[in-house]
Amino acid sequence: MNNDIDFEGYTCPIPIKPKDTVVLGHGSGGKLSHDLINRLFLPEFGKAAPRALDDSAIVNINGQRLALTTDSHVVSPLFFPGGDIGRLAICGTVNDLAMVGAKPIALTCGFVIEEGLSFEILQRVVQSMRDSAAEAGVYIAAGDTKVVQKGSADKLFINTAGIGFVESDVNISGANAQVDDVVIISGTLGDHGIAVMSAREGLNFETDLQSDVAPLNHLIAAMMNAGEIHVLRDPTRGGLATTLNEIAIQSNLTIELQETALPVKPQVHAACEMLGFDPLYVANEGKLVAFVKPENAENILLAMRQTKYGEGAAIIGKVIKTNSPQVRLRTAIGGTRLIDMLPGEMLPRIC
Amino acid sequence: MNNDIDFEGYTCPIPIKPKDTVVLGHGSGGKLSHDLINRLFLPEFGKAAPRALDDSAIVNINGQRLALTTDSHVVSPLFFPGGDIGRLAICGTVNDLAMVGAKPIALTCGFVIEEGLSFEILQRVVQSMRDSAAEAGVYIAAGDTKVVQKGSADKLFINTAGIGFVESDVNISGANAQVDDVVIISGTLGDHGIAVMSAREGLNFETDLQSDVAPLNHLIAAMMNAGEIHVLRDPTRGGLATTLNEIAIQSNLTIELQETALPVKPQVHAACEMLGFDPLYVANEGKLVAFVKPENAENILLAMRQTKYGEGAAIIGKVIKTNSPQVRLRTAIGGTRLIDMLPGEMLPRIC
Repeated sequence: MNNDIDFEGYTCPIPIKPKDTVVLGHGSGGKLSHDLINRLFLPEFGKAAPRALDDSAIVNINGQRLALTTDSHVVSPLFFPGGDIGRLAICGTVNDLAMVGAKPIALTCGFVIEEGLSFEILQRVVQSMRDSAAEAGVYIAAGDTKVVQKGSADKLFINTAGIGFVESDVNISGANAQVDDVVIISGTLGDHGIAVMSAREGLNFETDLQSDVAPLNHLIAAMMNAGEIHVLRDPTRGGLATTLNEIAIQSNLTIELQETALPVKPQVHAACEMLGFDPLYVANEGKLVAFVKPENAENILLAMRQTKYGEGAAIIGKVIKTNSPQVRLRTAIGGTRLIDMLPGEMLPRIC
Repeated sequence: MNNDIDFEGYTCPIPIKPKDTVVLGHGSGGKLSHDLINRLFLPEFGKAAPRALDDSAIVNINGQRLALTTDSHVVSPLFFPGGDIGRLAICGTVNDLAMVGAKPIALTCGFVIEEGLSFEILQRVVQSMRDSAAEAGVYIAAGDTKVVQKGSADKLFINTAGIGFVESDVNISGANAQVDDVVIISGTLGDHGIAVMSAREGLNFETDLQSDVAPLNHLIAAMMNAGEIHVLRDPTRGGLATTLNEIAIQSNLTIELQETALPVKPQVHAACEMLGFDPLYVANEGKLVAFVKPENAENILLAMRQTKYGEGAAIIGKVIKTNSPQVRLRTAIGGTRLIDMLPGEMLPRIC
């Protein structure tokens, strides 16, 4: 059993700051999350590596490259316009695999259930998982269920982990952005975060907005057929702003966005005005950002627009060389402002 | 990307009965858990297959056999004599992989943290995970952290999923028991369950007992070198009684245990008397049961006793042919009684 096993870095997509206790912001996907990763998890579990911020780790087993990832889901409420915790759990892990160019193969699911949850709710969630897995073309291969006393968990948490197969010639990573790369988004920003907020107790506001939660692996397969891709990332917790800052740091480059090019639905715009949010920081669950060479952009955009989840694909910016990694926004009136990671917590339990 | 992908059945080690709500017993590992699997999860996620009750699924990717498993950990308290939730999370998944004969390779970990947990506690848990992973020889390849509001979870839940490599000639499953097989246990029964109970608030009792939580993959490698193994299983939630019932059902055979041969520490015996428990139903986290041909038993026992976690290995029973699968106990005074699965819940949040 002396297998040829090797790791392309350690990856820990989320999480310490030397404060006394964990705060909600440590789960935000933003700055505090990155502190937690860098100060607590990476020193114990593995060295910071190029892939440490990617959505999946890549493990080489006997010459075969396998992507490996995990995501726990604690969204509240369990059902929201356009989706539910089950669809989120499947799509989140499928997408994390697909974002390193892997073909998702199999998932595991771990349920932590609060005593007293109705079977009808659990069944609806499980059926939604089944349907989402079928859409993505992945298998649910193993499962586990724990039940805790009433008050020891909030209804239902679901962890999904997944494995995918990565072709030997695929090299997609947040560390691979290059100067002059074009930045493409697959559709509108902030739909998921605002849809969940609209369903949240005490915060109800009228909107016909649906979450964008969707499996993006078929979209990515079409993109990979259309041209070489340097970076893929789904802007979930922390939004596009946080995701682009991660990529800027990993690749040590600057990303410049055009404010007028950012696609945002009127309902999301209106809700963000009302709540004091910026769509750049609101979570998406069915969108991706891609970095490609300028000469490949048109082909890849066309391929994206022919797929269900890429119809609204648009070029939103480019990569430029500077002295320190950053994300800049060229505003509608011609100014420039720096876009930082999400500093604290904006929307707890959004996924 | 047309890979040769195949599944050796669907496996869901735990979980519905058509009652209105989920009760603690649905997480017990016993009868209610099996109802949950059979009535809710299997119909949606996959057909009942020989491996549906095994500890890991086996996925064939391009001719390579990979074991895949998941386990969420909700043990209370987080620290107990002999272990903690971190060691439990690593060993639980390493052991589930090893119980199908896989060499564990990589794990993922998903943390759900209650706001306000101290960093010191989180760091102790993470360091324990690091040490246990090093002992087992596995890598922690990916992680995720979610933080929920105070009162929405009880301190800390950890999911670990894992992949392992299975040699092409390995075929270990609960469905493989054969008439005349000898049943071997690797050591004493009930240490984990009683150690956790001894640390539980409101239930403190004096004992020097330590949990047996340990990674068993090196023990299993030694056993596989010593002779052919038909069945391996770790008697965790639900205890040895539940585990043996699962194997009896999977293999459609009867298992007969000798009461006088069952190794139980005096402290466990005393605590069980006091609490009204039967050690056969108390959880273990560093023990395994193996089914082997009689002619191989001596060699395998010798190999086990030369390892750290197999010193107390003993033969406790055998497989006999009957009309319906069952587990029987030959008592010390010469009688025989039927041993059923754990019917409800005895020790919630034991792992």
